[in-house]
Amino acid sequence: MGFQSNSKNENLVLNDARDWSHLFSGESASRKSSVMQAMHGILAQPGIRSLGPGAPSTEYIPFYGIDFKVGSTDAFETVGKKTPDTTTSIQAGKHDSITGASKYDLAIALQYGLGTGSKQLVEFLTEHIQLIHSPPYRDWQTILSAGNTSAFEIVLRMLGNKGEYLLVEQHTYTTVFETGLPLGFKFAQVRMDKDGLLPEDLDHVLSNWDESARGGEKPRLLYTIPTGQNPTGITQPLARRQEIYRVAQKHELFIVEDDPYYFIQLPEFRPGGNLPATTAPITSVEEYVKTLVPSYLRLDTDGRVLRMDSFSKIVAPGARMGWVTASTQVIERMIRAHEVSVQNPSGFSQIAVFKLLNDSWGHMGFVRWLAHLRGEYAKRRDTLLEACDAFLPREIVSWVPPTAGFFIWISLDWAQHPEAGTKTKLQIEKEIFDATIENGALVVPGSWFLPDEGSSGMDGVFFRMTYAAASMDDMQEAIQRLGAVLRSTFKLGHANGMSESRL
Amino acid sequence: MGFQSNSKNENLVLNDARDWSHLFSGESASRKSSVMQAMHGILAQPGIRSLGPGAPSTEYIPFYGIDFKVGSTDAFETVGKKTPDTTTSIQAGKHDSITGASKYDLAIALQYGLGTGSKQLVEFLTEHIQLIHSPPYRDWQTILSAGNTSAFEIVLRMLGNKGEYLLVEQHTYTTVFETGLPLGFKFAQVRMDKDGLLPEDLDHVLSNWDESARGGEKPRLLYTIPTGQNPTGITQPLARRQEIYRVAQKHELFIVEDDPYYFIQLPEFRPGGNLPATTAPITSVEEYVKTLVPSYLRLDTDGRVLRMDSFSKIVAPGARMGWVTASTQVIERMIRAHEVSVQNPSGFSQIAVFKLLNDSWGHMGFVRWLAHLRGEYAKRRDTLLEACDAFLPREIVSWVPPTAGFFIWISLDWAQHPEAGTKTKLQIEKEIFDATIENGALVVPGSWFLPDEGSSGMDGVFFRMTYAAASMDDMQEAIQRLGAVLRSTFKLGHANGMSESRL
Repeated sequence: MGFQSNSKNENLVLNDARDWSHLFSGESASRKSSVMQAMHGILAQPGIRSLGPGAPSTEYIPFYGIDFKVGSTDAFETVGKKTPDTTTSIQAGKHDSITGASKYDLAIALQYGLGTGSKQLVEFLTEHIQLIHSPPYRDWQTILSAGNTSAFEIVLRMLGNKGEYLLVEQHTYTTVFETGLPLGFKFAQVRMDKDGLLPEDLDHVLSNWDESARGGEKPRLLYTIPTGQNPTGITQPLARRQEIYRVAQKHELFIVEDDPYYFIQLPEFRPGGNLPATTAPITSVEEYVKTLVPSYLRLDTDGRVLRMDSFSKIVAPGARMGWVTASTQVIERMIRAHEVSVQNPSGFSQIAVFKLLNDSWGHMGFVRWLAHLRGEYAKRRDTLLEACDAFLPREIVSWVPPTAGFFIWISLDWAQHPEAGTKTKLQIEKEIFDATIENGALVVPGSWFLPDEGSSGMDGVFFRMTYAAASMDDMQEAIQRLGAVLRSTFKLGHANGMSESRL
Repeated sequence: MGFQSNSKNENLVLNDARDWSHLFSGESASRKSSVMQAMHGILAQPGIRSLGPGAPSTEYIPFYGIDFKVGSTDAFETVGKKTPDTTTSIQAGKHDSITGASKYDLAIALQYGLGTGSKQLVEFLTEHIQLIHSPPYRDWQTILSAGNTSAFEIVLRMLGNKGEYLLVEQHTYTTVFETGLPLGFKFAQVRMDKDGLLPEDLDHVLSNWDESARGGEKPRLLYTIPTGQNPTGITQPLARRQEIYRVAQKHELFIVEDDPYYFIQLPEFRPGGNLPATTAPITSVEEYVKTLVPSYLRLDTDGRVLRMDSFSKIVAPGARMGWVTASTQVIERMIRAHEVSVQNPSGFSQIAVFKLLNDSWGHMGFVRWLAHLRGEYAKRRDTLLEACDAFLPREIVSWVPPTAGFFIWISLDWAQHPEAGTKTKLQIEKEIFDATIENGALVVPGSWFLPDEGSSGMDGVFFRMTYAAASMDDMQEAIQRLGAVLRSTFKLGHANGMSESRL
């Protein structure tokens, strides 16, 4: 695959990350070590009697034990089987680390913690990063975040400055704009094809950057969602990632890799076919890793990548927890930012996920769960794609079956719209969006994934649709309703046997 | 007490908050409603089939039930009794809101949520605010925060602008500076006496504000910790609060009330005495409320207060959760900020605290727990104060016994230091701090609670000491060690029977 697996044992051949401190914003660079940090150092001295940090006695935390009923790994084997209702119980006590029952407990999790998150869960996730991504430089570090939304906001303020341009995919996750615009960021969109962000266009944008025309310096940050991109569903293949990394090297870019769908990599869609062999039972972590497109982190010899992972799509969005991996110099600034904002993710989240991953599943169980999810989401994707095949008018709608993530992105041939000469793309999009809601279905307009919601840079009429949560029936019904709206709006013939009672 | 209890039923006599929109920063004012917000409106329509928000199916959340073993309210009665090991179990299932077992469940808590926090826990806390603070204006709103550290950072960016001055107490919580300085805030310190922030000095600072001398506009924001102030331990009495509120009205100030120690209001210290009657069993929420100094929120007829409450000192710091109350116009901007940062507190935290407060304890049980904590922290405070009486050299050390919170603040008569003529206050402080650590105890230097850690505005040598967590023995030993350092540093005679073996 053109890259080597690196284990910590082969450390000697790895270099440290390059120096990226020139990227730190004034806000970030001016953060001092916190006073709590200073106190932690002193408290580590043997025999010290502390009247220092104002943390309550854990005696007064009214939670004495928590029993988590979690999915049992025994139930993850069979492809196509329903998500397990076979559960196993795992208990967290207040002082398990003292009794020896576990290395983590409620007294630690529910007390104040460090800006890294608790060392027990960080340790598990550091092993996980090594197993899955094996970063090819020496001084990388993984810490917990309070979810990718929180992490992204902190990263923007840490690595970017007001008025600066951020490079993004032509269409990207709305929250990126909602976060960046109030902070004063501008967005330079990079064109995409079926393999995602185009390296040639990235190079073109940067090579021809005109500061005065753009009203801002040449960008230093690329934000990308490389796997199952939101909203397009596109996954960059390895070769594409390697090309983009080379362009990043050429133009001194730092890459923010937002990868919540990394583990929702799906087998290719085969209409009417059975699930292919790649969803077969997993026998080792190494075997599983081979089924995944390598991340930017795995290619990152320079330490120019900050990778954001999230539990939202693979364990629970409500955990509000993820993990971030980058060079220690960058992570250190992020810890300082955590100390004066979120501090660390909830201890209830940390102990829940620690009990699940470390004390119950282990790395192998985690990977089996992820492989199980892959099978489940593949079925869902296939249902939605089959509904698209059945009910959307191919004359005006096209799409690329996604191989990762939660989304199908459809493109409309808006030029065929009866009023294409007089209506704008945005007006056509709105007409269809409103009519679809009127007809009882919700799909998301493509313009919502543009920095200014369509007033410029809108190069087509698109809709995003998710198969993540709707029932199989609802998916089919929603697509049928959308199909009816499209036929009506574009004045096409009716599909055979199609109900349009609600139009 | 000079204020009236207001119930929601007496709404008609209350006014709406005044308009505070002029305070919103450019960043805050420019936030648009989020796309998720728009989708939630559409999803509320009956019969809609959604392919909209990319939230995973709750089928794939591998937590099927959580059983919390919590403190039983039966055990909170007796004053002076050890914190209860009598526990009760309370279970949260995945679909309790469908089965009717509870109005809240794991499927809701562990899914994506709103920037307000989940409506079930918000409902309980809104009732709580009404019961305890009864805000005297109509359009107030309570939402969840990800803890006061997170809330403060968001509030600063929402209500203040880079380069602006923030009014703070002479000494205040270090994180305020650690948060504000990198954001470009400056600090205008207001003098304090034994009743806290001085209204006359606040008026003086504002009446004589010289923009060019200060290099900034007249402040619009006052940050105060009114109860058990960190670091001084001081609690502003009602009359003091009323005076400060009047000064705020005179100068158009908005007040950020950071009140994590509100429920740690303690009976007056009586050396060697028994615990007084105010820690007697609580018979109703109303009776309990009468034992508390009214908050600024309770005095706030103008809607000029944003109040931050926290679970950190009364349930668990690791919950990383608090609640914020202010006028709807201010809360609306805060919700928008949540949507692009923390989103909402962890659902694990939310369900844990909901099960504890709503499904197990109720408002009355919560108040009994708070009263229990008051008794516990009173014992701890008394132990530390008695150790101070026994082991600190009164010739050079003075303190005011606190009536709330976690801290005792001692003042040294530094002029009596043998080298007072040649050493600065900061040098004397550092000498004592280092020697105390050397002698095996940790107390916190007063200069750490100044914006520039002592290089200006240092009007004495102080140390903060906490009784929150150390064992009774450790507290005594630490004070004994500190006392020995002070006697040695100031060349005083030895206390009777005092061990100085480690000096």
